Amino acid sequence: MDQVFIYDTTLRDGTQMEGIALSLEDKLKITRKLDEFGVHYIEGGWPGSNPKDVEYFERVQSLKLKNAKVTAFGSTRRKHIKAADDVQIQLLIESKAPVITMYGKSSIMQVETVLQTTPDENLNMISDSVAHCVAQGREVIYDAEHFFDGYKEDPEYALATVQAAAMAGASTVVLCETNGGGLPWEIEEITRAVVEKLGDTPVGIHTHDDSGCGVANSLAAVRAGANQVQGTINGYGERVANANLCSVIPDIQLKMGKRCVSDENLARLTELSRYVAEVANLDHNTQYPFVGSNAFTHKGGTHVAAMLRNPEAYQHIEPELVGNQRRSVVSELSGRGNLVEVAQALGLSLSRDQLTQVLDQIKNMEAQGFSFEAAEASVEMMLRRAQPSYVPAFEVLDMMIVMLRRKDGRMTSEATVKVRVGPQMMHTAASGNGPVNALDKALRKALVEVYPKLKAVRLADYKVRILDGDNATAATTRVLIDSKMGKHEWSTVGASSNIIKASWIALADSMEYALTHG
Amino acid sequence: MDQVFIYDTTLRDGTQMEGIALSLEDKLKITRKLDEFGVHYIEGGWPGSNPKDVEYFERVQSLKLKNAKVTAFGSTRRKHIKAADDVQIQLLIESKAPVITMYGKSSIMQVETVLQTTPDENLNMISDSVAHCVAQGREVIYDAEHFFDGYKEDPEYALATVQAAAMAGASTVVLCETNGGGLPWEIEEITRAVVEKLGDTPVGIHTHDDSGCGVANSLAAVRAGANQVQGTINGYGERVANANLCSVIPDIQLKMGKRCVSDENLARLTELSRYVAEVANLDHNTQYPFVGSNAFTHKGGTHVAAMLRNPEAYQHIEPELVGNQRRSVVSELSGRGNLVEVAQALGLSLSRDQLTQVLDQIKNMEAQGFSFEAAEASVEMMLRRAQPSYVPAFEVLDMMIVMLRRKDGRMTSEATVKVRVGPQMMHTAASGNGPVNALDKALRKALVEVYPKLKAVRLADYKVRILDGDNATAATTRVLIDSKMGKHEWSTVGASSNIIKASWIALADSMEYALTHG
Repeated sequence: MDQVFIYDTTLRDGTQMEGIALSLEDKLKITRKLDEFGVHYIEGGWPGSNPKDVEYFERVQSLKLKNAKVTAFGSTRRKHIKAADDVQIQLLIESKAPVITMYGKSSIMQVETVLQTTPDENLNMISDSVAHCVAQGREVIYDAEHFFDGYKEDPEYALATVQAAAMAGASTVVLCETNGGGLPWEIEEITRAVVEKLGDTPVGIHTHDDSGCGVANSLAAVRAGANQVQGTINGYGERVANANLCSVIPDIQLKMGKRCVSDENLARLTELSRYVAEVANLDHNTQYPFVGSNAFTHKGGTHVAAMLRNPEAYQHIEPELVGNQRRSVVSELSGRGNLVEVAQALGLSLSRDQLTQVLDQIKNMEAQGFSFEAAEASVEMMLRRAQPSYVPAFEVLDMMIVMLRRKDGRMTSEATVKVRVGPQMMHTAASGNGPVNALDKALRKALVEVYPKLKAVRLADYKVRILDGDNATAATTRVLIDSKMGKHEWSTVGASSNIIKASWIALADSMEYALTHG
Repeated sequence: MDQVFIYDTTLRDGTQMEGIALSLEDKLKITRKLDEFGVHYIEGGWPGSNPKDVEYFERVQSLKLKNAKVTAFGSTRRKHIKAADDVQIQLLIESKAPVITMYGKSSIMQVETVLQTTPDENLNMISDSVAHCVAQGREVIYDAEHFFDGYKEDPEYALATVQAAAMAGASTVVLCETNGGGLPWEIEEITRAVVEKLGDTPVGIHTHDDSGCGVANSLAAVRAGANQVQGTINGYGERVANANLCSVIPDIQLKMGKRCVSDENLARLTELSRYVAEVANLDHNTQYPFVGSNAFTHKGGTHVAAMLRNPEAYQHIEPELVGNQRRSVVSELSGRGNLVEVAQALGLSLSRDQLTQVLDQIKNMEAQGFSFEAAEASVEMMLRRAQPSYVPAFEVLDMMIVMLRRKDGRMTSEATVKVRVGPQMMHTAASGNGPVNALDKALRKALVEVYPKLKAVRLADYKVRILDGDNATAATTRVLIDSKMGKHEWSTVGASSNIIKASWIALADSMEYALTHG
């Protein structure tokens, strides 16, 4: 079966989206997840654009990736200098990324108005830059920016630019539909012309969704012979979206008879999509094709009735193929089977009744606004507490927070916590930057005497989401806390109309989790 | 120029979406707006499915529509009875809608498993039902459900069903891609075959977005000769989406050289899209192609620089053609020029020094985590306060919040506020769902005696974003509050490492803003 290589640029092009911000830790987490899923290339960032990306390439070297090659993104050299002298290219080499993705201009108009140089110098910039990185032992993917617009202006020049990259040793030439306004039949026709022209050098495609055809344009290029697709998870990207890999991958694999990842991994696509949304702290769009929680949901009465007679009547694929599920009413989270697996993996033996109890609890809490998708430690704690033999490491008796605003506008926050730890009663106070920080400090202070290991627990991330903004300051709030102890990481969740209570639930769960491990 | 007719089914297929609910008044409002925009057909509902739709068709008769014909949706007759005896068809006739849209089966598999009748009886059901409505003086549009799946199973039978509709007098035969899993080239090929076969009877297209190709599939059918497109505003629809008319219309008109509506009306597309979202009480997706507030927004530094040299460099169309506008996030508020404009629009005269002061303040606050992009009321308050003559409506002296967690896990929140209003000193307390809610209540309580108009201020939305999650519970938090008084809406922002302080800043600004208006 023909292989189509998947090139993920969530960490670079995806972060161009307004409202998205990924910390270094977030980027490393997503890298690991993409690798497990079987993506072939992970574009980690642009070392020349910011110091965080430089650090990413250092840190990523210690991840043991199984499937993916990490790529560093950058541009061709500046005009009239040597590639070796270009600081931005030096940073690409220093990143130690095994693959370098280099973008350059294909359009005469762009060469003249944006680069303000000659068509020939642009060709030299492409050849030199690609050849220099190849000579340094790197695989080079060449991204031909504005290729389709350039081709429409002057097909010969546009082809000359990608030929220059191919001759200089680029492993793949990627045609970029940078402005995103193309339509599928144009993309198909032009891609076919390039595939024929380039012969042995493979061709890739990079599209955006400005005409609402981002996915279709990627597929059209694959139909024309492209064997690499660049896109982002959930379509995150500047303006409207990049090609959404969560649609492109199943379309290619289930409808076009080509292969992207293994079938087992395809069945984890929904999980991947939700995981990335969760880490990026963005709502998971319920209407995403294939992976949205509504993608196989039926509301219309006739549809539901017809589905009962024949499940194929109103669904285009079996939802299980992409790890999603059919719903005809609102019923969240997977079911008992899943929970049994989790319990077994933890070595907990729970009765059928105990499991049902936990499942009911999960459903109730989800109805209140909790979401356990990315909070596996909270699920684990619920399972542990369902065991009759479970003894909690501590019990919170009382808690109080006082915040005072002074006349000068400064605000102080103080928390007191009364906790029972075995036979001991601890009653302490702490002040902090804000109420949650004060609580965090007070709770640690109360526990650390008995449990010195808590000193090593670090709260790595704190995410807040308002669920029903319409209720304004009385809205339900969901808090997700990521914690860390050495290399061990875990996440806990809390939800409440009181943001402090939501934070507290996640915080206390995190501490209790830390104390049940090691 | 070739005309493509636009058939809107937001009010029927759009309402199949989970989370959407339109009242009768909402449906009438949207009808009026769609008509003004120049849509050709408005599918108002299915009289056979619910009483609200029956009432809609009564009420809609009194609207004086200028452009659109209203259509009533329903199915072919039940098996083995006369069309005239079918209650559901009687309701269609009684709706008095000038156009009836009738759907029927095209797929043998569906005829056998869902209808549970013979292929011949299905053909009779189509002919009889269409002919009956035509005989009653109505224009009949025939929706061929599951057409593409049916065609792939048995092309001859699928064609026979649409020929039956055409022979019985249907004005247009619409090919429905009901399960939404098709790809553009299949849709194009099959549509072309039908267009050739049907000769004089026009062909339409109705697609869904389950493969992420809903828009592209509609365009592919138009390319193959279809001259009617059915879709919904913003793609509202069951599962993932119907074809989004807000993408389909500009693609056809600006990229395919055919005509849907007048150019003047096309320039109101963004307004239409936002209006429908507003009436449906759904967030307007900032990433919608063409009409989203981010559709022409640039964040990347190189893009912004290139745009300044050549605006066509990174946009596929002029945003004004669809009534949208270009934004570059970085330079959003950065310049003095911009601020001068805002001050002038408010009728404030500030000296150069005063303006520079406000600009410096904005820059400082942005560095702390504030963001004024969506908080024009906060900017206005800063400008007002920079005037030496400005007297604030109130002054907060002290504030305290106490939160207590009881042994049963319940948490209470209480706030006290001491405020000076002119010569008066108000000192009040209130409890709430959480600390911010308690503060909101206490502040209003303190102010409302002197300023009764504050009773009319409603907090419409409350958004929280953690800016540097890496600092965990000591992270900077940004809070955005949307407020409303009658039809007047405004937004204020606060930022602090203390989430309560951030909320307080936005809240107090909102109240002060309310008191400077009206």
